[in-house]
Amino acid sequence: MESPFTDEYFMKKALQEAQEAFEKGEIPVGAVVVINERIIARAHNLTELLNDVTAHAEMQAITSAANFLGGKYLHHCTMYVTLEPCQMCAGALYWSQISKIVYGAIDDQRGCTVMGTKLHPKTEMIGGVLEEECGRLLKRFFIEKRNLN
Amino acid sequence: MESPFTDEYFMKKALQEAQEAFEKGEIPVGAVVVINERIIARAHNLTELLNDVTAHAEMQAITSAANFLGGKYLHHCTMYVTLEPCQMCAGALYWSQISKIVYGAIDDQRGCTVMGTKLHPKTEMIGGVLEEECGRLLKRFFIEKRNLN
Repeated sequence: MESPFTDEYFMKKALQEAQEAFEKGEIPVGAVVVINERIIARAHNLTELLNDVTAHAEMQAITSAANFLGGKYLHHCTMYVTLEPCQMCAGALYWSQISKIVYGAIDDQRGCTVMGTKLHPKTEMIGGVLEEECGRLLKRFFIEKRNLN
Repeated sequence: MESPFTDEYFMKKALQEAQEAFEKGEIPVGAVVVINERIIARAHNLTELLNDVTAHAEMQAITSAANFLGGKYLHHCTMYVTLEPCQMCAGALYWSQISKIVYGAIDDQRGCTVMGTKLHPKTEMIGGVLEEECGRLLKRFFIEKRNLN
């Protein structure tokens, strides 16, 4: 039997977090951190609610996962995040030495790839998992926001 | 009469923060955020104490300054930080749209310049203010750490 714990499975969990952000009027980005097929941190963007540019989903998930593990390095962990990390988040993931980053939608404006942010040599990154669903939620958010203004 | 509120004046305040980090066994980096010659945030590195790679002085100072201002953008603010910001911190400063970054010691390994991190178009950055003092504290930290191990 195949394991149910695929990249899509965990990205759906990150999408649930993004949905929570959406419902709070935040740019809908969600993240989970997984070790040994177990979710140890969940977070969603809270920059508006907290008035804090550092409150991206990934940043909170890093802090939360480190709390869970009792150490600051996220070795053997994978982060699933619905949008490609920005410079700040990729920079934080660099320090965390996380093993893997899996993202959904590509951010071709502010994403770490186009910005040229360096990842840690121990970190592998793949993108495009549930890209369409992840991107659709973001597009819906910006369309609704535009119509409200 | 000349204003006492020079870049050196505020960098000394950031150095006091770095000294506090030193005394806690943290890599000694300190930061202050200034608006209209008034310090609105002070912070120092707490990554070891908090087990959190995101707890750099700059990150905490951004959050603290935004709390003080009641808004997430640090327009008209200057951050004084004793060490050149890394990718994560420069990425956070990007989102904050801060007006100016003044740093002390250059980080030619992990600093945002060598890493190629993009600053916000509204942000000006200068380095080398009290460079020697800022660097001396860092060197002392690493020498003492090496001797303890």
